[in-house]
Amino acid sequence: MTMAKRDTYTPESLLAVAVEVFNERGYDGTSMEHLSRAAGISKSSIYHHVRGKEELLRLAIARALDGLFGILEEQGAGEGRAIDRLEYVTRRTAEVLMAELPYVTLLLRVRGNTGTERWAMARRREFDQQVAELLAQAAADGDLRGDVDVRLATRLLFGMINSIVEWYRPHGGHSHGRDEDVADGVVRMAFAGLRTT
Amino acid sequence: MTMAKRDTYTPESLLAVAVEVFNERGYDGTSMEHLSRAAGISKSSIYHHVRGKEELLRLAIARALDGLFGILEEQGAGEGRAIDRLEYVTRRTAEVLMAELPYVTLLLRVRGNTGTERWAMARRREFDQQVAELLAQAAADGDLRGDVDVRLATRLLFGMINSIVEWYRPHGGHSHGRDEDVADGVVRMAFAGLRTT
Repeated sequence: MTMAKRDTYTPESLLAVAVEVFNERGYDGTSMEHLSRAAGISKSSIYHHVRGKEELLRLAIARALDGLFGILEEQGAGEGRAIDRLEYVTRRTAEVLMAELPYVTLLLRVRGNTGTERWAMARRREFDQQVAELLAQAAADGDLRGDVDVRLATRLLFGMINSIVEWYRPHGGHSHGRDEDVADGVVRMAFAGLRTT
Repeated sequence: MTMAKRDTYTPESLLAVAVEVFNERGYDGTSMEHLSRAAGISKSSIYHHVRGKEELLRLAIARALDGLFGILEEQGAGEGRAIDRLEYVTRRTAEVLMAELPYVTLLLRVRGNTGTERWAMARRREFDQQVAELLAQAAADGDLRGDVDVRLATRLLFGMINSIVEWYRPHGGHSHGRDEDVADGVVRMAFAGLRTT
């Protein structure tokens, strides 16, 4: 047994540890005991900061959602043709995913067993829905190819963006250069396609 | 307690039940007891067919891999320009994923804790590698836009295709029409992009 470290955690640094454990073990598979061991502080010290693991989940999910919904408030998401706003939101979504990687990873993995998880899934669907509306508007403007199925395209677009969590590592540990290059790659494949011919 | 059903399983139908349980509980979280309950036959009846759960995993993964590697043997994957072969392989990969949904889902989820899982991951990387080589060849032929990063594009392409397992339900339960329409949507977004402008 190791001695418990003195509790020098802030709510934010405790959250960072909790998110790591949730992503590794799954939220359902994580107990307060696991969190206590990972943080190196006693369970009662954790209870000093939060009511329990579901509150840590809610805080972590809220951080991911704030990042994503924040995009929709940005100028590039609100001004100009729908196709350009859609492209802007696509790029920024990829960027936020990389900047808030553990938090967005957790958001993408929740499965709806608790109230907090169901709330997370509902909010995620809302975000997807707002992007789907941009796609529909771009189609109405004649800026999408005529054969594009809006709902399918929305799913594939998020499928491509969200897959970044499977391999992306901060600080270029993935050999695709800077975050900007990754976001560029997503935007180019989705909007211009691979082919020249 | 319900009475155990008479064992009318074939190796194939037992496999179908096992794959369902693996996908639902995770391979690590599945015991022979879970499999016995889901199949409605005793553990010893299961051992009559296979040596244990790892053999069921191996059979299931082999079925997914046979489907995927089979694509590379098809005429469309071997003849013509690399860009057309790549497009053919993309379409067929999406089709095989939908046709063998539970098996490919399992393949995509294994994480490498056992020898069988590590073999699955190695074979999956081999498949990805062969597709990456087609992409590289298409780039060398001048048929890919010059700004395409081959490794990143390979990852995003598989990210898009593999995301189909998250929402696809057989028999059109997903409102995107036939499997063919879904495969078309993938090919169009990846190769032609969304934009007309």
